[in-house]
Amino acid sequence: MPEQSSSAARTAPGDVRTVACIGAGVIGGGWVAHFLARGYDVVAWDPAPDAEERLRALVDAAWPALQRLGLAEGASADRLRVAATLAEAVAGADFVQESAPERLDLKRDLLAEIDEAAPAGVVVGSSTSGYSMTEMQVKAARPERLVVGHPFNPPYLVPLVEVVGGDSTEDWAVSWAAEFYRVAGKEVIEMDRELPGFIGNRIQEAAWREALHMVANGEATVEQIDRSMTAGMGLRWAFFGPCLTFHLAGGEGGMAHMLDHFGPSLKSPWTRLEAPELTRELRDAMVAGTDEVVAGRSTAELIEQRDRRMIAVMRALAEVEAEEAAQAAREGGRG
Amino acid sequence: MPEQSSSAARTAPGDVRTVACIGAGVIGGGWVAHFLARGYDVVAWDPAPDAEERLRALVDAAWPALQRLGLAEGASADRLRVAATLAEAVAGADFVQESAPERLDLKRDLLAEIDEAAPAGVVVGSSTSGYSMTEMQVKAARPERLVVGHPFNPPYLVPLVEVVGGDSTEDWAVSWAAEFYRVAGKEVIEMDRELPGFIGNRIQEAAWREALHMVANGEATVEQIDRSMTAGMGLRWAFFGPCLTFHLAGGEGGMAHMLDHFGPSLKSPWTRLEAPELTRELRDAMVAGTDEVVAGRSTAELIEQRDRRMIAVMRALAEVEAEEAAQAAREGGRG
Repeated sequence: MPEQSSSAARTAPGDVRTVACIGAGVIGGGWVAHFLARGYDVVAWDPAPDAEERLRALVDAAWPALQRLGLAEGASADRLRVAATLAEAVAGADFVQESAPERLDLKRDLLAEIDEAAPAGVVVGSSTSGYSMTEMQVKAARPERLVVGHPFNPPYLVPLVEVVGGDSTEDWAVSWAAEFYRVAGKEVIEMDRELPGFIGNRIQEAAWREALHMVANGEATVEQIDRSMTAGMGLRWAFFGPCLTFHLAGGEGGMAHMLDHFGPSLKSPWTRLEAPELTRELRDAMVAGTDEVVAGRSTAELIEQRDRRMIAVMRALAEVEAEEAAQAAREGGRG
Repeated sequence: MPEQSSSAARTAPGDVRTVACIGAGVIGGGWVAHFLARGYDVVAWDPAPDAEERLRALVDAAWPALQRLGLAEGASADRLRVAATLAEAVAGADFVQESAPERLDLKRDLLAEIDEAAPAGVVVGSSTSGYSMTEMQVKAARPERLVVGHPFNPPYLVPLVEVVGGDSTEDWAVSWAAEFYRVAGKEVIEMDRELPGFIGNRIQEAAWREALHMVANGEATVEQIDRSMTAGMGLRWAFFGPCLTFHLAGGEGGMAHMLDHFGPSLKSPWTRLEAPELTRELRDAMVAGTDEVVAGRSTAELIEQRDRRMIAVMRALAEVEAEEAAQAAREGGRG
């Protein structure tokens, strides 16, 4: 009898009931909390002896936050089961999220084991931040269903997941995973090629290395670096990305004006990272891409939207600080 | 009669009543809106023929936002006066903010003119993002009172101001400006040396150049880059800077564990910016600096604070979006 085609066996992304989480540390446990909050049955497995205790503590700690964010109907921390073996964990899963430590040999063996035990057609996502799926999928018998689904910490709060396949991954698996993560409440970036650091971490890492250089040279302190972010760019970046931010910096002329007018300052020594050549092609790609993000909004509308969001963010953060101060005062008063 | 000493003439930062804003474009006008909202009398001057009209439109557009943020007692947009000449604008000022276009020759002449006309002892802050005060102060008779006070756009909302002097600036002027900006409701980073791009823009520029490289190479689209920020790092960076974020990534071991454990990944090709050598000295500086930012908070406390803030930010942004959608629906219904 021919093996059932993976297509026939495949559960639709919207019909997933049970998610297996392999590896239950900070990232794996964060995924467990997220999937539970979205109303899934979750089966976890982790080889550490105290894994279950730590995992349940992590979920309990995250739960109040998840309740404030809003749970899916029927969501319950009681729908977590910790399996005794990897095979038992993935046997009944409609999707598998792997979040093992970042060691290539370990990831290769583990993904092969998961692939061996998981039902045909079930997609497996890896949380790796450091390896490509092309490197990791080499030992698996059915590498076509292995994808990277790279989350940000904590996975139960940060919406972003970057999805990309390896050389042996089939396109349907990438599309399926992207759609599943969306259904499961995530914001997905579906990448068409592997890139070390994916997209988000490349930007984060560039910022981080510039920060390290500044500290190494006594040019800035850790406190100054962190404050430049939280009192500066970070407040904008919570809702307008770097490109839309610079589009606004160009005024009515937007990104085109910004690049044409401030292009030369790209060569200024404002970071240790050398700028790319601002070719006509790059300039046009930035303008066209930004137009897409702007989606027809006028400068006045964008400014209004920016101001409204920045104020909402600042007020929300100020309220949290006031609540914390009041709570600290109450606790102090008890002493 | 000897000239009055600048020290004797100096108004205390907390006693400033009148601020002169020289240059009233997007940045200068943003400063005007900010100072008005904090309850100052503002006298503006800009050589453009339609400057007053544009400035009043900018202030009017910003005012509802400033009202939502909370105005200082007695603050009023009516306390703006537009002067006919630069000399008239600065004559009665207790502080001068210069926000002219970014051209070195223009800045040099303008700062010399401001210095000529401003009362002795009055500190002058420049909004420049591209030049050092050392370069700009060369034509001024009293360069000792010229400082950089670099804001972020829009200056009426983003709290950060980076303050630094040039070679001919005296220390008292830097301290005075830093204190004045704080009194005027800003978050101040007082730098002890000039650095191209200051601190915030170095980090912002590193991120921006990495983004440009990715677009130039077809590795990511503008939309993906912006979404990686707003659905990812940006949500954290609104309240925890890059160093505190990575401290948490180190778990209970914090920054020390992060650097010792993930140090090797610093060499990964996750950005085009080469990493500094992770010397013992740099490692210790990062750990000590982060300790200062952590200020005794445990990992559990930090996680609780992070989650509370991230949820507050996400809920605040979701509320704004819901309001905007409801408003759009009402406006659509009228059609």
